[in-house]
Amino acid sequence: MMPGASVHPLDFLFHPRSVAIVGISGKKRDWNAGKMFLNIYRHSGFTGPIYPVSRSAEEIKGLKCYPSLVDIPGPVDYVISSIPATGVLQLMDDAAAKGVRCIHFFTAGFRETGEEDGEELERRVLEKARSAGIRLIGPNCMGLYCPSSGLSFGYGFPHEPGPVAFISQSGLNAEDLVNEGNLCGVRFSKVISFGNAADLNESDFFEYCTADPETEIITSYIEGVKDGGRFLRALRAASAAKPVIILKGGLTSAGSRAARSHTGSLAGSPQVWDALCRQAGVISVESLEDLVDMAVTFRFLKKPAGRGLAVIVIGGGASVLAADTAEKIGLRLPALSDGAQAELRQFTPIAGTSVRNPLDTVAMETPDGIVKTVEIVGKSPGIDAILILTRFDWGVSRVDDVEPIVQGTMAMLAKSVQQSPVPVALAVREPDNAKAMAALEVFYRLAAKAEVAAYPNYKRALNAIAKFIAWQEARADS
Amino acid sequence: MMPGASVHPLDFLFHPRSVAIVGISGKKRDWNAGKMFLNIYRHSGFTGPIYPVSRSAEEIKGLKCYPSLVDIPGPVDYVISSIPATGVLQLMDDAAAKGVRCIHFFTAGFRETGEEDGEELERRVLEKARSAGIRLIGPNCMGLYCPSSGLSFGYGFPHEPGPVAFISQSGLNAEDLVNEGNLCGVRFSKVISFGNAADLNESDFFEYCTADPETEIITSYIEGVKDGGRFLRALRAASAAKPVIILKGGLTSAGSRAARSHTGSLAGSPQVWDALCRQAGVISVESLEDLVDMAVTFRFLKKPAGRGLAVIVIGGGASVLAADTAEKIGLRLPALSDGAQAELRQFTPIAGTSVRNPLDTVAMETPDGIVKTVEIVGKSPGIDAILILTRFDWGVSRVDDVEPIVQGTMAMLAKSVQQSPVPVALAVREPDNAKAMAALEVFYRLAAKAEVAAYPNYKRALNAIAKFIAWQEARADS
Repeated sequence: MMPGASVHPLDFLFHPRSVAIVGISGKKRDWNAGKMFLNIYRHSGFTGPIYPVSRSAEEIKGLKCYPSLVDIPGPVDYVISSIPATGVLQLMDDAAAKGVRCIHFFTAGFRETGEEDGEELERRVLEKARSAGIRLIGPNCMGLYCPSSGLSFGYGFPHEPGPVAFISQSGLNAEDLVNEGNLCGVRFSKVISFGNAADLNESDFFEYCTADPETEIITSYIEGVKDGGRFLRALRAASAAKPVIILKGGLTSAGSRAARSHTGSLAGSPQVWDALCRQAGVISVESLEDLVDMAVTFRFLKKPAGRGLAVIVIGGGASVLAADTAEKIGLRLPALSDGAQAELRQFTPIAGTSVRNPLDTVAMETPDGIVKTVEIVGKSPGIDAILILTRFDWGVSRVDDVEPIVQGTMAMLAKSVQQSPVPVALAVREPDNAKAMAALEVFYRLAAKAEVAAYPNYKRALNAIAKFIAWQEARADS
Repeated sequence: MMPGASVHPLDFLFHPRSVAIVGISGKKRDWNAGKMFLNIYRHSGFTGPIYPVSRSAEEIKGLKCYPSLVDIPGPVDYVISSIPATGVLQLMDDAAAKGVRCIHFFTAGFRETGEEDGEELERRVLEKARSAGIRLIGPNCMGLYCPSSGLSFGYGFPHEPGPVAFISQSGLNAEDLVNEGNLCGVRFSKVISFGNAADLNESDFFEYCTADPETEIITSYIEGVKDGGRFLRALRAASAAKPVIILKGGLTSAGSRAARSHTGSLAGSPQVWDALCRQAGVISVESLEDLVDMAVTFRFLKKPAGRGLAVIVIGGGASVLAADTAEKIGLRLPALSDGAQAELRQFTPIAGTSVRNPLDTVAMETPDGIVKTVEIVGKSPGIDAILILTRFDWGVSRVDDVEPIVQGTMAMLAKSVQQSPVPVALAVREPDNAKAMAALEVFYRLAAKAEVAAYPNYKRALNAIAKFIAWQEARADS
């Protein structure tokens, strides 16, 4: 944190001294969520005490179990509840007695069921929380992932922190986003799965992330909003400080029915949502994949000065399809200048290639060729950015270790990106076999290390670039 | 072939007695296209003689080389030319002298260069072909893949034939489609990469595939059309006989510039193209991925009686997003009947699930659960089809052999599809690691074996289902 910056009142959520996990089955072979959380915390990097709470087990994985929260000797700041909904009122009393500061309810069976009993239970839990000064995350959610302090809710979530926050009303979407982001080099400051939002809701977390010095980019999956006025204010403030990208679920009748079943949310209309995003300067996306792509873009792509794009690829058909897609979504592919074409022709054979734009060029395959090509293309008038389409399914099928091949290709690509006069993005082809996927894992890792924006296919790359440019234009206008 | 069916005049192209490959480098370490084709033909299943033609080599891979076509002892029906454009006139003379019936020119450097020399050369080659009665494929293309006769242009293309034809003006798009189709269980009758179409063009191949008894579904990638009137007649006839799915390249100014550079094609306007597709009853798609998906759909998905879809998934957020996407593209997700919901509740726990539609249900994870769920859902009024979203990234990361896990899941999914009262499609999540991709390879193989339509993500599945239904509705109206 910067010296002098004040700590946001919710920052304590992310820095508990200890974690208690309540609801661990004593039966050896039973999977249950309590055991899952315990396993996750054993490898999450959390350095404080972890207390398993179990009615039936005395010890689990070498850790002493406690029959209830009040039996734990030290202070308990943070509780993860995976007990059935029937036990939550007792748990609230125990937590109040113990001086717990925050409870994350993985436990479901509240308002989202649509049943009167569930709604009433949620109300009573909230009342008890308010009177004891306990903050609630959820119920019906996965809770918090904060790599810098070791909070987590997924196996294998990276320990390395990064600048992207994700505020999510779906736990599984959050898990998927972390894993997809992980593949593409996106690392997180805070990932917050907040489910039914009985107490802390989307506005609280937007306000927190706006103030959070670890967060530079805010992404979110939202189903329903508790208080429209407050949310709009929170969004505006967030968007004034940092790029904000939101995936809104429940914008159709079936989607909104699903959102009610999922988190008890009233989802609202697409028109209202669009207006709200426009007013607040928020980027609205249509899928989790888009969300990952925008995080990659804001993290790694320099800002293009305009809509003029050059596309470089091997393959005439691929060049045609990429050009069509780019122009359909509002990017422009100006023909390269005669001078640039003449320069490129000095080392690009005429048969089976094109140096107009899109470029279909075998020069991509030689280290010098691609570096020189990018440099010449980037200087041609009207070219504001370059997209290079590359692929790793050729050549990797018959090798045991894909790493050297990908390293060789990435070394020349990274050099061409670094020496380019305009921003450069890379896109690959989706894998059709495990070897190609292994090569892509290496590719993304090296791209992230070189701070290069990399996308899983040309359509996703073009969409992300177009949205990035549109967002800049809107900001310049306002 | 059916008894009594007449053989189409172009059928000879696909059944040559021998293949000569002209332009093989004699240098050991040199990659060249001639060597590539020779390597492909050594494993393509072609049973006739293969004659390498090389000026510099006497023998290659145990096969005797001939200095020119005229030196080959036996008859030569089919020639693959990978020599530079400078040698093609001599090659035409040799081929005429030898009585060759067809030449596939991989050779580029003709009309597509936009240079007068290239255009003139293409004209002269065509003249020589006409006067010698030789048919040309290309120039500037990959040629023919016909698994039933062993013609091929790609390493590892399946030997197993299937009912899908692909007529492609791009060789690389053709190669990619075969490999993606291969992954998803799509097998081919004929794949034709025809490049500049100096002689045989898209209309010839559409007419051929319409008559071809091995072809049940016609797919195509087209950049430019030689003769609009003839093409429209060919499309109408094709579409009256078989489903026709076309990806049109060059519908924007940059795409059309790229098409001119690629195959010398004048691409035409999107309005004309749309009208033409509507008139001819052709399905127009926007990407190669869509083309694969439509092939999968026509191959494996039974016809839904209407637009009512049920979506079954684990994960509330995923259910919301799938429902939103489905309704945005014109599918309907009717709520299940009270009776169906009550039946499902008998074995679906209330916490963390929904049985309304979309269904977010852990019953998916048990063999009985998913079979019963699909049966109940499929009988609910207004449900015409079911999409099940499944995933193989859970549980496979820590096993060496992914096969048993996928087999177990697929056994229950295949059973639920077979017992369902309505058509059922499956969609997975895209892989984020090599192990998950290995599991998906098994998944697609088993899905194809069970004749189940399987898609790489929910958006592609929903798009394919929506297009399939729209196509049926249009046919019912006309």
